Amino acid sequence: MDYSQMCPKYELAIELLGKKWTGLMIRVLLDGPKRFKEIKAQIPEMSDRILTERIKELEKLDVIKRNVYPEKPVRIEYELSEKGKALEPVIKAIQFWGEKWV
Amino acid sequence: MDYSQMCPKYELAIELLGKKWTGLMIRVLLDGPKRFKEIKAQIPEMSDRILTERIKELEKLDVIKRNVYPEKPVRIEYELSEKGKALEPVIKAIQFWGEKWV
Repeated sequence: MDYSQMCPKYELAIELLGKKWTGLMIRVLLDGPKRFKEIKAQIPEMSDRILTERIKELEKLDVIKRNVYPEKPVRIEYELSEKGKALEPVIKAIQFWGEKWV
Repeated sequence: MDYSQMCPKYELAIELLGKKWTGLMIRVLLDGPKRFKEIKAQIPEMSDRILTERIKELEKLDVIKRNVYPEKPVRIEYELSEKGKALEPVIKAIQFWGEKWV
């Protein structure tokens, strides 16, 4: 790989992933579709407001999808899109590094 | 891998890596030891003050090493430690994802 010059795609990718809470949310969603409260349960320090904001951002970026099930009461779940699921090797690499070096 | 609960080591790892500029600096240093100005050359938008701050943080975390060569004028280079070099799979995974999806 050529590390001798910066790559704009890398810059954008790390900007997305490095944003506070985003890397945690993606890890949670690798476990499968989750409701708002289920995401919160794994990241309790994140406020509802910020979680709502991040969900919207990640939907816009096509990293997560919002599924609405017309039950009573309505059930809403969030899941990783194909683009989001493709982040699994990144999340795994961070996990493995963390386990060894943190 | 178990995604059903958050892992504190993962949290710390992504906090380190996700901090603004850090992920770019590590990518630059994967190219080999670099002087201050050589790091800046690949990340021109980062101020000298912030680069100095980040270098100190990453030295403290044992991610980078500072080498001083007693030449005239003194030459100072920064390079990844073993812990820092171990981040290469993470950087590569981000790069590959970026190339495909950004």
